[in-house]
Amino acid sequence: MYFLLSLHRRGHRHLRHVKHLSTTAHSQLHVPLNHPTFLVWASNTSLGKTLVSTGLAASSLLNPIPKPRKFLYLKPVQTGYPSDSDSSFVFHKLSRLSLLRRHNLPHFSLFSSNHILKASFPAANSVLGQEISETPHSGMRDLGHYEEAKAEGDVGGGAASQLVCKTLYAWREAVSPHLAAERESGVVEDAAVLELLQKCLRFELEGGGEKGKETEIFCVVETAGGVASPGPSGSLQCDLYRPFRLPGVLVGDGRLGGISGTISAYESLKLRGYDIAAVVFEDHGLVNEMPLLSYLRNRVPVLVLPPVPKDLSNDLMEWFDESRGVFDSLKEEMLSAYSKRMMRLQDMPKKAGEIFWWPFTQHQLVPEEAVTVIDSRHGENFAVFKAQNNEFITQQFDACASWWTQGPDTTLQTELARDMGYAAARFGHVMFPENVYEPALECAELLLEGVGKGWASRTYFSDNGSTAIEIALKMAFRKFSYDHGILSDVRKDNTASRRVELMVLALQGSYHGDTLGAMEAQAPSSYTGFLQQPWYTGRGLFLDPPTVYMCNGVWKLSLPEALHLEIPKLENKAFSSRDEIFHKIRDKSDLARNYSSYISEQLLQYSGSGGFYHIGALIMEPVILGAGGMHMIDPLFQRVLVNECRSKKIPVIFDEVFTGFWRLGRETAAELLGCVPDIACFAKLMTGGIIPLAATLATDVIFNSFIGESKLKALLHGHSYSGHAMGCTAAVKSIKWFKDPQTNLNITDEGRSLRELWDEELVQQISSHPAVERVVALGTLFALELRAEGSNAGYASQYASSLLQNLRQDGIYTRPLGNVIYLMCGPCTYPEICSQLLVKLYKRLEDFDQFHQIKEENSESYGG
Amino acid sequence: MYFLLSLHRRGHRHLRHVKHLSTTAHSQLHVPLNHPTFLVWASNTSLGKTLVSTGLAASSLLNPIPKPRKFLYLKPVQTGYPSDSDSSFVFHKLSRLSLLRRHNLPHFSLFSSNHILKASFPAANSVLGQEISETPHSGMRDLGHYEEAKAEGDVGGGAASQLVCKTLYAWREAVSPHLAAERESGVVEDAAVLELLQKCLRFELEGGGEKGKETEIFCVVETAGGVASPGPSGSLQCDLYRPFRLPGVLVGDGRLGGISGTISAYESLKLRGYDIAAVVFEDHGLVNEMPLLSYLRNRVPVLVLPPVPKDLSNDLMEWFDESRGVFDSLKEEMLSAYSKRMMRLQDMPKKAGEIFWWPFTQHQLVPEEAVTVIDSRHGENFAVFKAQNNEFITQQFDACASWWTQGPDTTLQTELARDMGYAAARFGHVMFPENVYEPALECAELLLEGVGKGWASRTYFSDNGSTAIEIALKMAFRKFSYDHGILSDVRKDNTASRRVELMVLALQGSYHGDTLGAMEAQAPSSYTGFLQQPWYTGRGLFLDPPTVYMCNGVWKLSLPEALHLEIPKLENKAFSSRDEIFHKIRDKSDLARNYSSYISEQLLQYSGSGGFYHIGALIMEPVILGAGGMHMIDPLFQRVLVNECRSKKIPVIFDEVFTGFWRLGRETAAELLGCVPDIACFAKLMTGGIIPLAATLATDVIFNSFIGESKLKALLHGHSYSGHAMGCTAAVKSIKWFKDPQTNLNITDEGRSLRELWDEELVQQISSHPAVERVVALGTLFALELRAEGSNAGYASQYASSLLQNLRQDGIYTRPLGNVIYLMCGPCTYPEICSQLLVKLYKRLEDFDQFHQIKEENSESYGG
Repeated sequence: MYFLLSLHRRGHRHLRHVKHLSTTAHSQLHVPLNHPTFLVWASNTSLGKTLVSTGLAASSLLNPIPKPRKFLYLKPVQTGYPSDSDSSFVFHKLSRLSLLRRHNLPHFSLFSSNHILKASFPAANSVLGQEISETPHSGMRDLGHYEEAKAEGDVGGGAASQLVCKTLYAWREAVSPHLAAERESGVVEDAAVLELLQKCLRFELEGGGEKGKETEIFCVVETAGGVASPGPSGSLQCDLYRPFRLPGVLVGDGRLGGISGTISAYESLKLRGYDIAAVVFEDHGLVNEMPLLSYLRNRVPVLVLPPVPKDLSNDLMEWFDESRGVFDSLKEEMLSAYSKRMMRLQDMPKKAGEIFWWPFTQHQLVPEEAVTVIDSRHGENFAVFKAQNNEFITQQFDACASWWTQGPDTTLQTELARDMGYAAARFGHVMFPENVYEPALECAELLLEGVGKGWASRTYFSDNGSTAIEIALKMAFRKFSYDHGILSDVRKDNTASRRVELMVLALQGSYHGDTLGAMEAQAPSSYTGFLQQPWYTGRGLFLDPPTVYMCNGVWKLSLPEALHLEIPKLENKAFSSRDEIFHKIRDKSDLARNYSSYISEQLLQYSGSGGFYHIGALIMEPVILGAGGMHMIDPLFQRVLVNECRSKKIPVIFDEVFTGFWRLGRETAAELLGCVPDIACFAKLMTGGIIPLAATLATDVIFNSFIGESKLKALLHGHSYSGHAMGCTAAVKSIKWFKDPQTNLNITDEGRSLRELWDEELVQQISSHPAVERVVALGTLFALELRAEGSNAGYASQYASSLLQNLRQDGIYTRPLGNVIYLMCGPCTYPEICSQLLVKLYKRLEDFDQFHQIKEENSESYGG
Repeated sequence: MYFLLSLHRRGHRHLRHVKHLSTTAHSQLHVPLNHPTFLVWASNTSLGKTLVSTGLAASSLLNPIPKPRKFLYLKPVQTGYPSDSDSSFVFHKLSRLSLLRRHNLPHFSLFSSNHILKASFPAANSVLGQEISETPHSGMRDLGHYEEAKAEGDVGGGAASQLVCKTLYAWREAVSPHLAAERESGVVEDAAVLELLQKCLRFELEGGGEKGKETEIFCVVETAGGVASPGPSGSLQCDLYRPFRLPGVLVGDGRLGGISGTISAYESLKLRGYDIAAVVFEDHGLVNEMPLLSYLRNRVPVLVLPPVPKDLSNDLMEWFDESRGVFDSLKEEMLSAYSKRMMRLQDMPKKAGEIFWWPFTQHQLVPEEAVTVIDSRHGENFAVFKAQNNEFITQQFDACASWWTQGPDTTLQTELARDMGYAAARFGHVMFPENVYEPALECAELLLEGVGKGWASRTYFSDNGSTAIEIALKMAFRKFSYDHGILSDVRKDNTASRRVELMVLALQGSYHGDTLGAMEAQAPSSYTGFLQQPWYTGRGLFLDPPTVYMCNGVWKLSLPEALHLEIPKLENKAFSSRDEIFHKIRDKSDLARNYSSYISEQLLQYSGSGGFYHIGALIMEPVILGAGGMHMIDPLFQRVLVNECRSKKIPVIFDEVFTGFWRLGRETAAELLGCVPDIACFAKLMTGGIIPLAATLATDVIFNSFIGESKLKALLHGHSYSGHAMGCTAAVKSIKWFKDPQTNLNITDEGRSLRELWDEELVQQISSHPAVERVVALGTLFALELRAEGSNAGYASQYASSLLQNLRQDGIYTRPLGNVIYLMCGPCTYPEICSQLLVKLYKRLEDFDQFHQIKEENSESYGG
């Protein structure tokens, strides 16, 4: 009867469910921060969350106060209803307490209400006294149960304080919400819970106009059961409420074993990014506060409540009186945590402008009000603090994927958080050379079985894309020098090295990182002038490549001048589809032959033996040149390049820092090209985008050119955190997550591709917009170039800024490359989300176009 | 009566206590892995840990088995003794079960024993029936309570299986161990618990010689209470047992609220780096396994036990029969987890050699048996797997500080783990430019108030030391170009930049990282030849600096040739103490004037206006040249250098990547020098050594040279993870931790210095050893150069390898710089630990010397 449970089928079903909710919910997140609002958590059931809520309500409303106040008590999820109703408990206890205390509060006046909004049919039937209907109802019904009360002090009069209690959803059975919901056919999605909660919060905290604004309001949202008890959909409550990231108080456990439960619950909340303002628990004579204080250090205050009478007939009035001081202190702690948070949030833009030195940023162009205050991230979204009128938290889709690194959906982020804690606790960081430890080994295995499959046999770890490239260049040059006899020349004659200059073959518009070695491998650009890097010389032969893009709904080819002149008939060739562009049949085309002869010609000038300059490596970003402006290179041209170099024994480096790990819809862009490199560099998405780590993969023959008797022949390049355990742990998790169809629902084609994320019709529509010069949509990338001229074009252009500001208002955070703007999602992002982004973008392009037309007309009329 | 507790005094006392234990314990860690050994954890008290242990014992011993087995049950910490005794429970239940089941096991024969080793005096008195003595006893006494039993099947005979039950420490009160221990004056330090536990494990698992080796043994170590319940010293049990990092099974909670408790307990264990082989709990009809399975995905099996009869008179025999299948499955899961772990550990060195490409490593010189398998790190120590004879885990002090990054003691590591989880859950990674978020802001604030205090006003984040240096160079060159009119020349005439070559002023033997820009700023070395980096040219004026070191117990000055000739009388000047070397009074000395005129002369050749070469920056590692061989530079020389450059408006860069954050006993080495830079680079210890992050700090005037109308004038250098939240979170925690005397007991001198970590007498003794050329001891660094000649000297030398192998056998993991070896501890490491390291080193130097003398004599006699 009892046995090991099968994990697969049911676990999976549940997973999909959770993912769906977390990815699609809350397009209109708006969490008021204008009044203190706290979640009340507990480390287990029946520890007195509702007593704490009641005590806080009393402390807010039943003390002498200069003007009326409001206390808002929300219970989103209630089971065991109507026998159990925490909001009714708060309502009734406070009514009774106010009667008892009113003699000491002469001008006191309190209006209280309790509202049960929605209930399952069994719960509703039970409260309405109806028979359970024969036809089974499913879903939740509006209950509208409402009660109110008024109390006045001996003198009375004046404006009344308010106690507002609300239960959002109620079920009848006194079990965990997920069970009650299932058994009563009343499952409620996480999004619905959050939406109703947000509605209540906004109504009570932001409603009431100017007058309401002045009222002091204190709000608690009481959870059900323990911190990780499932909510009605089955999501753990600590996950369910995460998008709001409200601060919390934790009701701990004063009993035997309670220290452990309290600490573990605290850790589960921290592992989800929550802040806890205080821990409070009932005294059981075990002095549990001492170990808790020791554990918490100075971070969090711990408060102890007197023992609660066990006699069920006790009305607790005496207990509340005895506890008054603790609740007053607790409320003060919460208020102080709230004001600290608010002051800090308001202060941050100014401080940032004073002490940060942001990369790639002209500080003079960033006024304080343009600084984005990021309170947290949740999956693909930033939670952004806004201080206009009422302070609140809103949401912006991270459409720049935080410099192209981001992959996690909310579930992956939660799992990565736990894995990061585990890796830090197990390994911290340990030395890599001559050592082995699990995360580094598993990561290397996954890389070689995945992105290196079929060609790579060694993994060289470093910290970021730039260092991965510098390592790749050193590898390639060593191999080239061996193969072309340069090293034996150097060995024979120490000065020979001075007569050899190794160069790379690379593409105009390419970009490989910001350290000098990586910069030397890119063509001159805004980044490379004397002003930026006096040491840059540009050690490469930089070819101007043919590009492809969509315009007016059609994919087209654009040839550089050199090739255009050679093969004019092919300029502006149109493709029937994007697939055609990648098709291998093109290898046999005239164009392929033209490409080949063009490249051969270019290489000819460096191929003579005994020359000073040698092309020692081909380095390129396969398919898309990222920082260079999101240009899609004709894959045929890149394939031909690889073949030409291979035939001349020039090692081939693919810079997949941007393109790797599904960025372009395949695990590598090499797969899209249909050819393999000798060396490839990965970073960014490799760790899911949570932590820096890079890897340079290489073939055995490359590796072998560093083998010898002496350490001096080894590759003497490394960084402190080479193969660091946390980075490798994140990579192991993310690499698996992205390619597993059970965790990434976008995976199709037997695990080889992502499904199409950008709706084709919308893409075509945008590519036909008059403001748009060209569009590229591939994998997780959607890019467009705004039609612009003169100083409006190029990297330093501010042309797109009004468009970007508007998009941020729509909840889309983008960052431009001059007049090129892009939307980038994660490998797991739902196509529906991408469509929403495109729709919003299109709408804003219309505004943008109008704005510029008007501007132009104005300037014309001024001109005329 | 009940109120907010004061956090400070008592929490602090407790903290010190924990730290002391964790830092000094287990110099002889040796955890047998030759038989499966598991910790039994529970998410709360009274969930049936002992039932699970008993069930596993029955499953091991009371099934038909081909040959005798042994089951070892250890209960390190027992309270409520003698009324409660889990080892007695296992012993008695199993005896009874074996009587019932023996009819089905004809050849069965079982010898059982139960042993209570140590008890508090009240517990001992209670079991021995003595009166409690009038004079209060403190400490624990040997109890030696022992019972045994024998059972045979119907046929009997043959070798007997064995059940060995042991309670290590027992207290009388049925409360949490820390309370019982305190109340019964029987506090036991963590180290003592672990030592006794290890002794029992080794005795039972490794004893018995060759014959014993063949016996199949299964061992469980049952914890007390919940996972985070305090042990006898007050340390949480999940922290107490962490040095062994035994895998575990978690006994969960099947009751209402139990899902939350089980998940939270699981997360607390993961947050301490434990692996959990299975979760098992008693059924309460709530189907808690479903949400648990969903949460755990495929990682961990979940097993459900039938409800335990509540009737206390029930002997549970039927229940154990009913549960048999579950326990058999549980045991299988545990065995399978054990074999997977062992196979992997044994396989790792080979796989590592096949697929890793280690930096700075000649793979041909690293045979499989030389690869270190690191199972985990705990504070300053690696836990290393050894497969010789019996497999076991041993400990090695990470004396290379994992490439000079390490700072955490065990407590900081635990806290960092939780912070890493929190930061990942709250932020993951979010875009930095034009944004602000708490960890980046707080980190920047702490940097400017700390290491940048008094001079820096801006923080530029990057990924590692190399990138921090490249950024620093770009900053310095811009400022220099402005100040010296070079930029206006370039602006007027585009080709002017080609007529200007900016260089650095740097020291011979300096090292600033492995990317090309950082390499260009260092003098030619093993790392810079054509073989390693064909693009290196060495763009600097590299001065040979005077060094200081200890030899024969005395600090001496060594002048480079150029200076030696000038001031021969000062060569081999001796200092009375290390303090004298740093004393500012030396600024007025003749030597200072000599240094100054020497430097002026050198600079003269580049100072002419209109010249091609310009010294655009001074860059140096203050006080110690790290990778260059741990050379201590005469601080007076560096101070003079800074002054000379400042007078010529050459920006000064301090590379504090290695020296920063207490590495040399001060928060910065600049403090030791007594002067400030214009730009400084930090990395390594900044995050405590757990995760990559770097920062380049700069003054306002440097920053202002990048302000203007255009983005093109901004500093266009950045990395994907600039100011990433996790790195900044780690930095915030570590920066505070290291300088707070409450968390770092080494802090003295009003928070400005570390106390002396290396015993002066021992240091002098080593510096007088004939095998030793010179010694440097400063802050956390102890370095020595072995006296060596020819190919035995220098970076590629293998001269030290026998010494290093011996040190690893002593539990010290070092990594040499050729014939220079060093010991490096963390800022919080106890001086006692450092002394142990020095003592071991001295002993091994003796062996080393003998070994080389013999070798020499042999070669002489062969020669003769």
